[in-house]
Amino acid sequence: MGRKIVVIGGVACGPKAACRAKRLDPSAEVIIVEKGEEISYGACGLPFYLEGEVPDVKDLTTTPVGVVRDVNFFKAVKGVDVLLNTEAVSIDRKKKEVLVRNVKDGSEQTLFYDKLVLATGSSPVRPPIPGIDLAGIHCLKTLTDGVRLKKAMEEAPGKNAVIVGAGLIGMECLEPLLNAGFNVHVVEKLPFVLPALLDEEMAVPLMKHITSKGVTFHLNDGVSSFEGNGRVQKVKTEKTEIAADLVLLAIGFRPNIKLAQDAGLETGPMGIKVDAHLRTSDPDIYAGGDCVESYNIVTGKPMYAPMGSTANKHGRIIGNNLAGWNSTFSGICGTGVCNILGFNVARTGLTERDARNEGMEVLTSLCPAPDKPHYMKDAKLIHLKMVAEKYSGRLLGVQILGPGEVLSRVDTVAAILKSGGTVDDCFETDMAYAPPFSPALDNLIVAANVIQNKRDGLIRSYAPAEVKAKLDRGDDFIFLDVRTPKELEQMRLPYENVVHIPLGMVRKKASELPRDKEIICLCKISLRGYEAARMLEAEGFDPGKIWLLDGGLVAWPYEKIVNM
Amino acid sequence: MGRKIVVIGGVACGPKAACRAKRLDPSAEVIIVEKGEEISYGACGLPFYLEGEVPDVKDLTTTPVGVVRDVNFFKAVKGVDVLLNTEAVSIDRKKKEVLVRNVKDGSEQTLFYDKLVLATGSSPVRPPIPGIDLAGIHCLKTLTDGVRLKKAMEEAPGKNAVIVGAGLIGMECLEPLLNAGFNVHVVEKLPFVLPALLDEEMAVPLMKHITSKGVTFHLNDGVSSFEGNGRVQKVKTEKTEIAADLVLLAIGFRPNIKLAQDAGLETGPMGIKVDAHLRTSDPDIYAGGDCVESYNIVTGKPMYAPMGSTANKHGRIIGNNLAGWNSTFSGICGTGVCNILGFNVARTGLTERDARNEGMEVLTSLCPAPDKPHYMKDAKLIHLKMVAEKYSGRLLGVQILGPGEVLSRVDTVAAILKSGGTVDDCFETDMAYAPPFSPALDNLIVAANVIQNKRDGLIRSYAPAEVKAKLDRGDDFIFLDVRTPKELEQMRLPYENVVHIPLGMVRKKASELPRDKEIICLCKISLRGYEAARMLEAEGFDPGKIWLLDGGLVAWPYEKIVNM
Repeated sequence: MGRKIVVIGGVACGPKAACRAKRLDPSAEVIIVEKGEEISYGACGLPFYLEGEVPDVKDLTTTPVGVVRDVNFFKAVKGVDVLLNTEAVSIDRKKKEVLVRNVKDGSEQTLFYDKLVLATGSSPVRPPIPGIDLAGIHCLKTLTDGVRLKKAMEEAPGKNAVIVGAGLIGMECLEPLLNAGFNVHVVEKLPFVLPALLDEEMAVPLMKHITSKGVTFHLNDGVSSFEGNGRVQKVKTEKTEIAADLVLLAIGFRPNIKLAQDAGLETGPMGIKVDAHLRTSDPDIYAGGDCVESYNIVTGKPMYAPMGSTANKHGRIIGNNLAGWNSTFSGICGTGVCNILGFNVARTGLTERDARNEGMEVLTSLCPAPDKPHYMKDAKLIHLKMVAEKYSGRLLGVQILGPGEVLSRVDTVAAILKSGGTVDDCFETDMAYAPPFSPALDNLIVAANVIQNKRDGLIRSYAPAEVKAKLDRGDDFIFLDVRTPKELEQMRLPYENVVHIPLGMVRKKASELPRDKEIICLCKISLRGYEAARMLEAEGFDPGKIWLLDGGLVAWPYEKIVNM
Repeated sequence: MGRKIVVIGGVACGPKAACRAKRLDPSAEVIIVEKGEEISYGACGLPFYLEGEVPDVKDLTTTPVGVVRDVNFFKAVKGVDVLLNTEAVSIDRKKKEVLVRNVKDGSEQTLFYDKLVLATGSSPVRPPIPGIDLAGIHCLKTLTDGVRLKKAMEEAPGKNAVIVGAGLIGMECLEPLLNAGFNVHVVEKLPFVLPALLDEEMAVPLMKHITSKGVTFHLNDGVSSFEGNGRVQKVKTEKTEIAADLVLLAIGFRPNIKLAQDAGLETGPMGIKVDAHLRTSDPDIYAGGDCVESYNIVTGKPMYAPMGSTANKHGRIIGNNLAGWNSTFSGICGTGVCNILGFNVARTGLTERDARNEGMEVLTSLCPAPDKPHYMKDAKLIHLKMVAEKYSGRLLGVQILGPGEVLSRVDTVAAILKSGGTVDDCFETDMAYAPPFSPALDNLIVAANVIQNKRDGLIRSYAPAEVKAKLDRGDDFIFLDVRTPKELEQMRLPYENVVHIPLGMVRKKASELPRDKEIICLCKISLRGYEAARMLEAEGFDPGKIWLLDGGLVAWPYEKIVNM
């Protein structure tokens, strides 16, 4: 008889760990305990089921050739037993037993284990707001949630939807809600969209895009109560009231750690504590997926970042260790990507805010540019912000967003973060180049160059927010806009202290500029602004007074006059 | 007076080096000598000019805001002088002088330099084949070539085009030629398309795709002569004759090294020799771009890989060093990407053939799979082949092709190659996951897992070519196809030694299989084949007799019966 392996949780990490262990050790008896009705499904596909891209929710439970991954499949193909609708009630670590209960008939049984896996996942946060249990208030986590929400969308008494929380899940549900004809309002505690993923200046173009599709944001605002008679009709916030026929609560997920806590396993606010082997404080119990604390390879600290990709990797590592191997997982860097109403958003590593909160000194670059050579018709804009350590140049993270291509850039940086590479490594990375795909110097390389230039003292720049603060304070400085007259007609800053000299005239007209004031150079994206700054320094201007506006006019998130 | 810098060559590396040097050292006098009519153009955009995506060839010479990068632009904006139509004739290294000649009027002058840059580029290979100087035979390298070829396409007396060479440039020109109504024949010395980029098994699906668009390949064949009376009418090859109203010679590029050789600088067959500072054997002369040997970071050996991206990076490094800095460039890994008639092709690092030619022992994986979760409607197939060192697991390269997304995968691997990472590092790379972009376990991660499994003794597999050889030899073995009956109807191997048992029945029916014969397990892509192999071993079959067909039926490049 082989050893007994019990796996609690049947979505991503659990089945992966179970099947891998059984493949490596065919003599093992492996059983998965899942409290829901379904096993091994693609929960991340739910927004696409809601919007109709995935026609049947069952599609999220099939293999690529259309075989449903049900109890029979796991038995016949994987040699693994599955108990559905079965909740793990408690763990007796001395006896090495798990008490489980059938949630339908209440029957209980005790499962002995040699090795136990906790893959208990996470749950949507549901704060105790008055009215939160009214009908019409939904979360989105399980297939059952998805089916219920889709039905609710079809049967809602009216077309007013409120999303609480401007995070990933909420923003991914904008498209299905808008497509279904809803007026959508979003309530968010923080001052901008995707606050966990982006710096504020990067959120601005995304927020503009979303707003242009008819969505209303209520930022710096929180829900005080849900009002209605049996079913929700209104959301009261700290600042206003919003009619609501449907509410999506999307304020994040919390790891399911009660079972582990009750069993006396070490846990933290970010999940069950595990070592590099994904072993808990009990050497016979492993844990992985959304219920554990992850290790951030950039900060060297624990973090919480529930992701289907990480959960699957955890499953493989746990499966190896269940079979007696010695496998480790070195951590993650918080990579995420999504498409919001046609706008791609990706980030990996730390935002500038994250890094400063860690007490790091950083250099950043802000590069809005086409994702391909400008002469290609289908070139599309992407905004890219790179963050690096000031002294070492070690890459800390990147945020990329826009209608253009973001995946290759975010994955490349994730690979560089894995190796602890610097902006110099990023510059030297031999990225693929051909006009249908990318510019000769990829956006990432340009961003790395900008940080190199800052490190090397060639660029002194202000972030948009710093310049805005100077304006608000009434500081005495001038903007030097070096774009062409035609560009100026299309878009310009609405301030009185803007001087316009096209780049080709800057050498000639430098003498007309004041030498006693700060000059902030800019162009569309600040590449020419950089050249102008170098020219002024070459003309003998005090380098301490010559500055660059990071990201130029395109990245300027404040007032501008646009005539397109 | 600042130091004098002379830059020979005005396309990519040259202008970049010149402008960077001038920005860092405004006191320098910088002059670019270019023998053509144009400066600083995007030569890689020429195929897209031919096909009309780029309407005007001038678009390839403008900045993103539409300013033409001409002599005046370089003077006014960059502070750099440019001599067009001017050829560098010889270098006197003792006197530090370059003799240059105006190619239009023959006038000569001598330019003194403190530092010299050779960015002389490359030239299309034109072997001394009889008839090669006939009208209608074209190369594609410069803007002038592009304009001439476009005109020739419009004015050709008939619609028969022959491309000599199935490399990148030739294949990128298929689309413009087909769109212009040409019958296109391709003559290639080697047995498959993109022979410098791909392994043969990876070239097969690409070749099928190209053939399906009406292109005729003449492989293992070479041109004996071009026939015609003043203008080409026929291409005679070693095996056949092809009518030709237009010929595109695209058999590669050679570095322009004569000037350097004549000056006594060290050169090799792959270009001018430079150190990590891109300094030639004369410390006052730098060289970069298509005219130099590159260093391959994977093999640690010189290689020739002319790329616009590398040339631009060289320019920056040379510019730094011209200004007195101490900058180095660590090398490349042969990354390339292209789109051929809607099929994306990318590779970086070494192919299996490259690695074996280096005497390396390798493990490979062959993974054809959708580029997104299968439930997403726009998921598209990509074929992925990964190559790693057998013992260390160090990643050596990847080839990716198909209608699906390839850029993120190739760039991620390029970043891993930069850091010398292994398949374990690849598995752990925190790549972005969301259904509109990528599967939960990215194709790269699955490919890394397959190599890990091979290294760890879990998979013994045959490459398709090895199995074909066994068939041809008449070896006694059976194929075990574990797909569903429905899949079997759609596509199957046409051999008598195929046994079909759906995966879910393999445990039950294992006893029906012979224990004394080799069993080669397979499914659509060999993931289920792998599970079947593990099952048979668990059932006590001799592990030495259980094999997997790498890449399954999808990657099987030989006979198969298809009813779709």
